[in-house]
Amino acid sequence: MHILITGAAGFLGQRLTQALVARGTLDGRTITRLTLVDQSAPPAIDAGDIAVVTTSRDLTQAGAWNALLDGRPDVIYHLAAVVSSAAEADLELGLAVNFDATRALLDGCRSRGLGQTRVLMASSVAVYGGELPEVLTDMTALTPQSSYGTQKAMCELLINDFSRRGLIDGRVLRLPTIVIRPGRPNAAASSFASSILREPLAGEGAVCPVPTELELFVMSPGKVVEALIHGAEVDAGELGASRCFMLPGITVSVAEMLEALRRRAGDAAVDRVRFEPGAAVTAIVASWPGRFSTAKADRLGFKGDDSFDDIVAGFVADPH
Amino acid sequence: MHILITGAAGFLGQRLTQALVARGTLDGRTITRLTLVDQSAPPAIDAGDIAVVTTSRDLTQAGAWNALLDGRPDVIYHLAAVVSSAAEADLELGLAVNFDATRALLDGCRSRGLGQTRVLMASSVAVYGGELPEVLTDMTALTPQSSYGTQKAMCELLINDFSRRGLIDGRVLRLPTIVIRPGRPNAAASSFASSILREPLAGEGAVCPVPTELELFVMSPGKVVEALIHGAEVDAGELGASRCFMLPGITVSVAEMLEALRRRAGDAAVDRVRFEPGAAVTAIVASWPGRFSTAKADRLGFKGDDSFDDIVAGFVADPH
Repeated sequence: MHILITGAAGFLGQRLTQALVARGTLDGRTITRLTLVDQSAPPAIDAGDIAVVTTSRDLTQAGAWNALLDGRPDVIYHLAAVVSSAAEADLELGLAVNFDATRALLDGCRSRGLGQTRVLMASSVAVYGGELPEVLTDMTALTPQSSYGTQKAMCELLINDFSRRGLIDGRVLRLPTIVIRPGRPNAAASSFASSILREPLAGEGAVCPVPTELELFVMSPGKVVEALIHGAEVDAGELGASRCFMLPGITVSVAEMLEALRRRAGDAAVDRVRFEPGAAVTAIVASWPGRFSTAKADRLGFKGDDSFDDIVAGFVADPH
Repeated sequence: MHILITGAAGFLGQRLTQALVARGTLDGRTITRLTLVDQSAPPAIDAGDIAVVTTSRDLTQAGAWNALLDGRPDVIYHLAAVVSSAAEADLELGLAVNFDATRALLDGCRSRGLGQTRVLMASSVAVYGGELPEVLTDMTALTPQSSYGTQKAMCELLINDFSRRGLIDGRVLRLPTIVIRPGRPNAAASSFASSILREPLAGEGAVCPVPTELELFVMSPGKVVEALIHGAEVDAGELGASRCFMLPGITVSVAEMLEALRRRAGDAAVDRVRFEPGAAVTAIVASWPGRFSTAKADRLGFKGDDSFDDIVAGFVADPH
C-alpha cells in the first residue's frame, strides 16, 4: 500500500506519519511506500522496510500533482492548507491553496482513473458559523463566516460529488479544536486552549482571554490521528449520501478544563493561569459551536476522548 | 440604474426583462440601461427610454466578463447555467459554466470595486439531497446528489463569502419547481409537472409518470419573477449571516394539482391525463424535498402563490 500525505511537515502530518510507520499496515494491507509532501520537505524518518520519499512542493503550481499521482497512491491524506487567519488576510492565497489545489488533486485522480483511491481531507469546525442551533448535527447547514471555512466547505461539496461519481473514494473529517497541542502559544485564536494547560503543566504562566463558562468542542491529537487512520479503513458503502462529518469531540468548558488541570497538577498549576479578557479572541472562539451530535461518526466507529482528564494525561505522557 | 441579466434569452430571463421594462424602476431608481447576455443574443425588445444592449457571449471564455462589468452594473441577475441533466452528463462543462463562470463574475466585481453591486444568482432545490428531514429549513445541510446541485452550492458559498467581505452585495434565491412553464414537454424530469396542466388546458393529452400522492414544492413563473425583483430591493442589512435561502413555494401533491385542473377546466381536462408510471422520473422527482419552512424568505417579505388554483388561473390568463 502506497500512502501520500500532504502537509506532512505539519504537527498532524508528522504525528500521522509516525503512527502509520508504527502500525506498518492500513486497512489490513502492508504499507510499502510513504510519500511525504509539504512546502518545505518534511523531516526524514526511519521507517524500516517502508520506502519513504520526502519532497517539497507548492501544490498551487500547475502540474504540481502530476508526479505525486503518477505514483498511484492507494490512500491520500490531504492535510495541506492555509490556516484561517492567513486565508482571511489573503483571499486569493486561500482560494489557491485551500480550494484550487484540492480541485487539482481531484482532477488528477479523475484523469488517472484513481476511483479506488481513498482521499481524506481534514476539514474544520470553521465550516459552521452564523445563526446556529445549540446542538449541531450532521444535517446542520454550513454557513461559514470565514474565507477558510468557505473554502473547506467548497472542497467538501466537490469531494462528495467526485465520490458520488466514482472518480475518487473521498472522506472528509471535520476536526474539533485540537487540545493539547505541543509547542508554544501562537497567533491562532484557539491557541489559549492548549496554552492554559500546556504552560502550567510545564511550570510556566499562561493567559486565558475568554470567560471560563465558554464551551469548546475538543479532541486530543492522539484521537485525531486515530480518526485519520480509521477514516481510511471505513468501508465506502457505510458512508451514505454524504462523505463529510464531524468527528466525536467532547464538549468542555474552560472552567472544566482548568478543573482537570487542578486534578492533575494541583492548585499551583491553575494559579499560573492569568485571566486577561480579550474581546477579539472571545468573539471568534464564542462563534465556534461547542455542542455536536456526531451520529454519523459514532455509527462509523470513530472514537473520541473519554474525558478531559484523559486528554491531559495523554499530553503529560507524550508532550511533543 | 444599469441592470445586467445573464441567461437573458431563457424563459425566466425574458420574463424578468419584460417585468423590469414594464416597471421602469428598481429599488426606487429609474432603470436607464439593460444589458442582456446569453449564448445566443437575446431577442430585441422595445424598452422605451431604457438603453438596451443585447449580446451573445460564452461566459466560460477568459475575459468574457470584462466588457460587461466595465459597464459597472448596479444589479446583476446571473441566471445563466447548464441545466441539471447536462451538468450530470458532462462534469467539466458543468463546472466551467455553473461554477467557474460565476467565480469569474465575482472576481471581476472584486477587481473593479463593485462592492455595492447587487449580484443575484438563481439557485435550486437541487442543492438538497440525500437523507433529508421531512420539512426542510434554512438551516438544513446541503448534501446535493447531482453535479448541478454541487456546483450551485459551491457558488452559494462563494457568493456568501464575497458578500461578507464586502466585495459584492450577493443574494441567492433557491427556486422551487416552476409550474406552469409555457411551451412543450421536454427532457427535464420536472417536465410532467407543467405538462399535466398545460396540455389538458389546451385540449391536448399529457402523460403523468409519477404517483398522484407525490408532493412537489412549486412556484408560478410570475411569483418567481416578482421574487427576483424583490430580491434586488431587499436591504443588505436584513439578510443576516447567509445570503442564500429558499423562496416560499407551496407544497402540492399531484392529486391536488389535478383537482385544481378539474375545478378550472372540468372532468374532460383531467381525463386527458394518462398515467404511465415512469420509474426513472419518479426516482428523481421523489428525491426532491416537497416541504420547506421558508422563515427567512417570509421575514424578508418574499411572497409565494396563494393557492394552486391561482397558479392555474395565472397560466390561463398568460399562457406564454
